[in-house]
Parts: sequence; structure tokens; C-alpha cells
Amino acid sequence: MPAPLDFYFDFSSPYGYLASCRIDDLAARHGRKVNWRPFLLGVAFKLTGATPLTSQGPKGDYALHDFARTARRLGVPFTMPDGFPFATVAAARAFYWLLDRDEDAAHALARALFDAAFVRGLNIGPADTVIQIARDQGIDGDELRAALQDAGVKQRLRDQIELIISYGVFGSPYIIVDGEPFWGVDRLPHIDQWLSEGGW
Amino acid sequence: MPAPLDFYFDFSSPYGYLASCRIDDLAARHGRKVNWRPFLLGVAFKLTGATPLTSQGPKGDYALHDFARTARRLGVPFTMPDGFPFATVAAARAFYWLLDRDEDAAHALARALFDAAFVRGLNIGPADTVIQIARDQGIDGDELRAALQDAGVKQRLRDQIELIISYGVFGSPYIIVDGEPFWGVDRLPHIDQWLSEGGW
Repeated sequence: MPAPLDFYFDFSSPYGYLASCRIDDLAARHGRKVNWRPFLLGVAFKLTGATPLTSQGPKGDYALHDFARTARRLGVPFTMPDGFPFATVAAARAFYWLLDRDEDAAHALARALFDAAFVRGLNIGPADTVIQIARDQGIDGDELRAALQDAGVKQRLRDQIELIISYGVFGSPYIIVDGEPFWGVDRLPHIDQWLSEGGW
Repeated sequence: MPAPLDFYFDFSSPYGYLASCRIDDLAARHGRKVNWRPFLLGVAFKLTGATPLTSQGPKGDYALHDFARTARRLGVPFTMPDGFPFATVAAARAFYWLLDRDEDAAHALARALFDAAFVRGLNIGPADTVIQIARDQGIDGDELRAALQDAGVKQRLRDQIELIISYGVFGSPYIIVDGEPFWGVDRLPHIDQWLSEGGW
């Protein structure tokens, strides 16, 4: 089986959410799987000097318009969540803690977190909210609550982010296909073409 | 005849050049014309706090890779010009001076300037280079040389940029279709769909 696609995103990224709605189906059409790999965009922003998109004056206004327009074009539901942009460290720690035990469950939790934020409009920053969403997925909430404060789990996320940034990832979504990097949900058709043609 | 598309760009913008290769044909398929309207990205960057793409660490490396890859995908020639990013005030002044006399000639000069920069790889910053490119288009070089230093021509560009920025334009290319804004060469297929469907 050919190598999986690597899908890097931040749980507070609207374009990351939009890509998450389509990336698995796109990959499956080419017999590929997807490794979902959340990171913290704030850490990458420190390296590039970037600031959150929606805080950039007219660019922010455009982005808010474009999030909703892109969602309509893709045919997926979209709501701007409360408290945007929220911290995603609890969501990301929960993801990697679960990934090391059950990859499918971790991917399902990631989908549920994105859904809570960008369909139901919740602020998924607080640990309690992440734990409640995990419980709804059948995950032991008490175990997860302990994990979110565990030094090893915290270090696991720091190491993972360092690794992701070492690959040159600076934005969300960022998708690597057989070593080829693609940034942005608007690159999904390019990825589709790349997988069909093996590059161009 | 339906309203023309407004195409805003900076002459030093690789994605602006790439859009310029396709925008007229795209519009023509829908019975539309295109108003080419250069501006100075540096003025917009002061408002958004943005910096040139290629100076943004890993994002800059990605951009350099993506310029060439996008050009191959579109099937257009592409070279990174000498001295990039160069000043484009002379090119933009020349454009508007000519636009007020002969719109078709101004559009042809814009294409020739982009071609000089991104196909032949020239630094089109210096006034002498702009004048030589204009001469090759049959424009009177001495008249243009005087115009580039004329207070009225300088003010014409300043007023034009102020107007463009008042529309919310913050990047290049930025295309407005019947009031709907699209930023980036990767939005050309969206514009095509918007023109076909009248929105979505």
C-alpha cells in the first residue's frame, strides 16, 4: 500500500476544519490513508512572525467571508466558534494520548472536536469541554483528565510539534504527499491531481 | 455587456503574474472584460502588518517552491526575477499614465512588464528598464521619462492606491467580480464557477 498522506492542522483553524471534511475521502480515492497530526499554530507563528489571520485588518475580514464561502462551495456545514481563536493545547494533548493507544479512536476524536467547534460553534479550548467531547466518544473521562496534566503527555506534544515544525510546516492545513508539501484547503484539487499524475 | 472584472496586482507579485496569464481568457469565456489595476503591495502591507512572502522563513521557502509548481500546473513559463522583490513604483506610474490615454496600450504594457520580469527574469524596478520595455511597445520613451517625474502622474498613482486600498484590497492578485472579492491565483477556478453560477 502506498504511503499515507500527512495532514497537519490546528484545531482552531477554520481552513484546517474544512480540509478535514474532505481529506480522508480524497486520499481513499487514491488508495491512501491519512495520518492526522494536530499541532499548535502559535508555535509556528513565532518562527514566521505571522499573526492569526482574523486579526489582520482587511485580510481578517476577507478570511471570515472566505471561510463561509469555501464551506458552501465544499458543501459542508460551517459556524465560527465562540471564543475564536481558542487555545488548542488540551485538544492536541488528548489526541496524541489517544493516538498512542488507538489510531482510529484518535482520528474519530479529532473529527468530533472539529465538529464541536465548527459545526456546533463551541469553544473547545477548555479541558472540560475536550473531556466532555471525548466522553461522548466512549473515552474514559477521568483517565483523560489525568493524562492532560501528565508530564509525559505534555512532553509528547512538545516533541511532536518540534518534529512537525522541523518538516517546514508553518500553516494549517499543511499536507505532505510523498514528500511534496501543500498548504491550504484550496490545494485539495492540486493534491488530487498530484496523486493521479504522480506530480507534474 | 456585464461589468468587467477588477484585477488588482503588484508588478513584483509572482502570483499576480500567474493570474495575469489567465485572467483575460477566463473573463472572456464569460463575455467579460478585465480592468487591470496595479498597486503597491508595500502600502497595503503597512496596514495589515504583513511582510513580503519570501522573507517569512519556511513560508518563504514554500512560496518559492509553489510559484514554480503553480506555473507548471497552469502551463505558463516562470522565472524568479533578479533583485526580487523590486520596487514597482515606476512600472505602476507608467501604467496609469498610459491608461489615461489608451487602455489597450496600458494593458499591453502591463503584460510586457510582467513578461520581462517573470519570463525573462529582469529586475523591472529601475525607471530605465521600464522605459526600455515601453519603447519596445512603441511608446515614446522621452515622454514617458518626463511623465515618471511629473507631480500629477505621481499623485495619480497615490490616489489610485488609496482608492484600491479603500476597497479592502490587501494582497496580490485580488480580483473583484460583481462586488465579490477573491484573493490569490488559486481562486481562479472559484471565479470561473462564480461567473458560471452567479455565486453559490
